[in-house]
Amino acid sequence: MVPLNELLRLSAHVEPMLEKYLLKDTDPEFREPVLYQIKAGGKRLRPALTLVASIATGGSIEDALPAAASVELAHNYSLILDDIIDHSELRRGRPTLWKRYGLATAILVAVHYRESIAQAIEETKKPREFSEIMARTLKLLVEGERLDVLFEQAGRQDEPYVVEKRRRVVTLNDYLDMVYKKTGALIETSCIFGGLSAEAEPSWIKALEEYGRNIGIAFQVGDDIIDIFGREEATGKKVGKDIEEHKLGNIVILLTADELASREWRELAEILAKDVVPPRDLERALQIISSTRSRERAEELRKRYANAAISALQRLPANEGTSMLKSLAEFVATREF
Amino acid sequence: MVPLNELLRLSAHVEPMLEKYLLKDTDPEFREPVLYQIKAGGKRLRPALTLVASIATGGSIEDALPAAASVELAHNYSLILDDIIDHSELRRGRPTLWKRYGLATAILVAVHYRESIAQAIEETKKPREFSEIMARTLKLLVEGERLDVLFEQAGRQDEPYVVEKRRRVVTLNDYLDMVYKKTGALIETSCIFGGLSAEAEPSWIKALEEYGRNIGIAFQVGDDIIDIFGREEATGKKVGKDIEEHKLGNIVILLTADELASREWRELAEILAKDVVPPRDLERALQIISSTRSRERAEELRKRYANAAISALQRLPANEGTSMLKSLAEFVATREF
Repeated sequence: MVPLNELLRLSAHVEPMLEKYLLKDTDPEFREPVLYQIKAGGKRLRPALTLVASIATGGSIEDALPAAASVELAHNYSLILDDIIDHSELRRGRPTLWKRYGLATAILVAVHYRESIAQAIEETKKPREFSEIMARTLKLLVEGERLDVLFEQAGRQDEPYVVEKRRRVVTLNDYLDMVYKKTGALIETSCIFGGLSAEAEPSWIKALEEYGRNIGIAFQVGDDIIDIFGREEATGKKVGKDIEEHKLGNIVILLTADELASREWRELAEILAKDVVPPRDLERALQIISSTRSRERAEELRKRYANAAISALQRLPANEGTSMLKSLAEFVATREF
Repeated sequence: MVPLNELLRLSAHVEPMLEKYLLKDTDPEFREPVLYQIKAGGKRLRPALTLVASIATGGSIEDALPAAASVELAHNYSLILDDIIDHSELRRGRPTLWKRYGLATAILVAVHYRESIAQAIEETKKPREFSEIMARTLKLLVEGERLDVLFEQAGRQDEPYVVEKRRRVVTLNDYLDMVYKKTGALIETSCIFGGLSAEAEPSWIKALEEYGRNIGIAFQVGDDIIDIFGREEATGKKVGKDIEEHKLGNIVILLTADELASREWRELAEILAKDVVPPRDLERALQIISSTRSRERAEELRKRYANAAISALQRLPANEGTSMLKSLAEFVATREF
């Protein structure tokens, strides 16, 4: 088994590419805010998937570098905008881009990221095909983010569209649909891009797609679990942020609703629906959640999707790349940060 | 001479394409906010330029439709974001997208527009070439908008980057550079896209590029003049908005600075630098501006660029398309709305 660190370190090859595309056609005075987001770090899971998927299907790391850069840029593009949309002031322990430089600058940087994605795609093996997939993927991301916001149970009183369309009932299917679009689609695309960079045969691309879709959903379920039960020291994020953000679109909260008798659920629902959730209520919410089997059930769900991803790997050639994809799925199935 | 109305009406062919790309991969519940911006209307100058440039260089309207749609979508993409950046609440007499639906929805719609541009480009003759040019153009737009914001003389106290980098001195060259990037580049690209759709020879593309760059600058100079001297009934915009927005990057204000003795300029500069410009000061500013030859000189500048555009047409074949491009340049040179 390839150790995880080594695996994620593969993405080190992508770092200079990220800067290269971001600094293309960029005024020196604009460089600092442009590089701020990407230099904050992150796990670089998506480019690692692209590179490893390329290796697994007979390609090289070099062939997959522009594609790997494009998916990491797409991820950061979405983070810049998510932080604006969610009014988030901190990410990875530092001010978010809009908080640090201001809203106008953050929006301009985001547009700049999108064009850097296009410039990365120009250097892939099949720009036309990659470009088409990226456009579809980013439209899915928009749709997933739209649903995630509509699943919030309070806030955004100054947002007429959200107030009007807000969902009071969210089923497990609604959740899985939202999560596939918000997170799964780009992770799926990261895997497909690896296969396309290797010019892999269609059946292998199909297997990578299935692997990516499943691992993507598992990844987001993991994010939801970590949000509620994570340790702040390990994650750099505040515990229970999704509760403060009124999110019914967190699997742990959703499964809690499913488990509780109506009286207790009403108490939790009322906390989620408060304009501001005070610390006392946050604690009570965590208490209620912990009194159910929601954590266990969320973990089962995460494992089920991670296992589905691993199953898809049987249709790929047995080689070091495929075994690294398995390691990545196991990381996603169990990660606590 | 082809009448202007008929010319701009050419763009009617583009309308169904705009909807087609915007509604691709779009949830029914999202359609209303997505179509809101494009349905507000507008002159549709950019797609008209693409179609006419195609005709002028031996192509057809049909061949140029996807490219024409892409530039109009790009224009509207930038308008959605500009309205957020400038906190503008009204456009063409109705609430702006963010004001009508909320910030989160407006940002998601903007991202959706960018992907619709990519989907339009997929259907052009040379997606790879069009895509590359569009990416470069949108990075220029970002840069132009960044400069425009930095040329503001007050406001944005909550935007650390702007406060730190704000420019106190703006030369005519700074202005022309900013205006080419903010407005000229996309108009230039609209013309080039017409020539590329017609698969025109390189020297014709060069001529279209020169035509477009010059007409683009003339167009923005016209916008600046209209902002200060327009009639509200004709423009649907408030007179002197650029003064309220503290913009030293308006050619009329810039030329006024150049003409005035330092005492009077200081008075105008102080008005521009007020956090809020009260109606009395706005009126006084317009009075000061009118006491100079700045309007005449701005009109001369606009004509000079429009004439440069018309000169470039001599390198194109003499045909109906080229004569329509001349009509469009004459419209841009004199328009009052």
